[in-house]
Amino acid sequence: MTAATPIDLATFTHPLVHRMGDQFWFHEVSPDAFPGQSFGLQIDSILYHTQSPFQDILIFHSTSYGNVLVLNGIVQCTERDEFAYQELITHLPIMAHPAPKKVLVIGGGDCGVLRELVKHVDDGTVESITMVEIDDMVIKLLTQFLPNMARFHNHPSVDLRIEDGFKFLKETTAKYDVIITDSSDPEGPAEEFFQESYFQLLQNALAPEGVVIMQSSENIWLNIEYLRGLLVKAKAVFANVDYCQCYMPSYTSGQLGLVIATNDTSKRLSQPLRTFDEQKERALFKYYSADVHRVSFVMPTWAKEVLGRYLNT
Amino acid sequence: MTAATPIDLATFTHPLVHRMGDQFWFHEVSPDAFPGQSFGLQIDSILYHTQSPFQDILIFHSTSYGNVLVLNGIVQCTERDEFAYQELITHLPIMAHPAPKKVLVIGGGDCGVLRELVKHVDDGTVESITMVEIDDMVIKLLTQFLPNMARFHNHPSVDLRIEDGFKFLKETTAKYDVIITDSSDPEGPAEEFFQESYFQLLQNALAPEGVVIMQSSENIWLNIEYLRGLLVKAKAVFANVDYCQCYMPSYTSGQLGLVIATNDTSKRLSQPLRTFDEQKERALFKYYSADVHRVSFVMPTWAKEVLGRYLNT
Repeated sequence: MTAATPIDLATFTHPLVHRMGDQFWFHEVSPDAFPGQSFGLQIDSILYHTQSPFQDILIFHSTSYGNVLVLNGIVQCTERDEFAYQELITHLPIMAHPAPKKVLVIGGGDCGVLRELVKHVDDGTVESITMVEIDDMVIKLLTQFLPNMARFHNHPSVDLRIEDGFKFLKETTAKYDVIITDSSDPEGPAEEFFQESYFQLLQNALAPEGVVIMQSSENIWLNIEYLRGLLVKAKAVFANVDYCQCYMPSYTSGQLGLVIATNDTSKRLSQPLRTFDEQKERALFKYYSADVHRVSFVMPTWAKEVLGRYLNT
Repeated sequence: MTAATPIDLATFTHPLVHRMGDQFWFHEVSPDAFPGQSFGLQIDSILYHTQSPFQDILIFHSTSYGNVLVLNGIVQCTERDEFAYQELITHLPIMAHPAPKKVLVIGGGDCGVLRELVKHVDDGTVESITMVEIDDMVIKLLTQFLPNMARFHNHPSVDLRIEDGFKFLKETTAKYDVIITDSSDPEGPAEEFFQESYFQLLQNALAPEGVVIMQSSENIWLNIEYLRGLLVKAKAVFANVDYCQCYMPSYTSGQLGLVIATNDTSKRLSQPLRTFDEQKERALFKYYSADVHRVSFVMPTWAKEVLGRYLNT
């Protein structure tokens, strides 16, 4: 990875970057996933842009959210608020499991989930982490441009494999206590992660009390019928499925859904099995707490009516 | 109010309306309140635009959110998601009060709060509603363009007064069980609603067990120091102050804060004093439920650390 060469904004062209008066703005648009709405961030400078073998990668410095990673036109993380999603997708399954020793991460190239998992390694709970990311360019770029996220990419507890997560799961005979699918959205290399066949592979790699979690790439306001379909697929494989939401300002409509599942029907995934006292919560977390864990599963009345029948809440 | 004359988008000029290729977009920007970020809605047609004596009023039909009301450049409500905010700001104080008979609404010109209050009139709880709105043009426009919100503007239980809410509170000797301040944001005619002197006026008009609520015009992500200041002002007047959030896609960053207060220190405003069974909740509400009531008060760890000391949660 060579050092970043400054890119001249005035001559930089990208379908989602626009000049507005004397300012430059990134506008996130997706006619399929969220037609007619757009989240915009003012650009201070473009740090990097390329088309990797797998996706369009854009990194810019925004005037108010720090450095921002965009994959295939969708904001993946900003330095200002990335901790919210990284903490929720990590600590929910970890704290809903009685003794999570062996953890698998599929995707997760920004390494934010690794950073959060290392807290449980340091705490003596998690013993090994395997991460399977298809695009090593993402890891290298994050190390350079969002180093606070990527600082544990070479942690001694982490077995990092650059390969297709789908293929890895087909071949592995290992069983994991927690499997976190931290993929980009279904448009792009992550498409196969939103299918029932993928849930079946997760099932095969799961230890008896194991918990899986994945981002749903939607929320209740954007496309609840898509979410219903995703829950139906999950429910066809796992006995106990639930759904929760992360609230953060840089994701479309300010929230993102997560699907969480296990085979243990006696467990309520909305209730943490292990908790820390308030002082330790403040030391370890900026977003997560046992209370945040519980309330993330509560949906507005109309959404509960549509999705509630598939959930174990 | 005359019938709407179609406005030609191609020649319409407004600082927040832009042509992007062959599309027209509204971009909500505020260099003071949320610098460097912007929520955009694609415009199908402009329905109305004027500068009233009090504010800039823009109403457009968006391609995916229905009709949208914008005051002073800030989205106030869209047909798609307005129910979330209207329900939360109304039912929180009503259900946190043991017997709310007399209700005062300051602002509320879109009449969404009235629509929600009428549910409690029909239910035999609320007996009288006084609404004090400074700008009757907003009421008339909503009746025309967002009629589902405004349908109870002339309900027999409502005493509607077109005057300054601040002045009304200075002069009234009545005492109210619930006072809802449903104002626009501090930039504009609503500026005086965000001062300690206003909280003192609310206090004077409040019955002994009374509950007040107001939108804070910010959320924890946008400007937590401003929120801290607002809570300090509220705490200088009310013995029991709390803060909660509404999550909806058309507000900046997908969430909006609400400040709620009472003088009764034995009460936890985050716990509804009265609840309905699930069937009745589904019949009455699309967003609110007793569960939603409780979880709206739970904040991420970092925000709780900043604001928690002022709150009674």
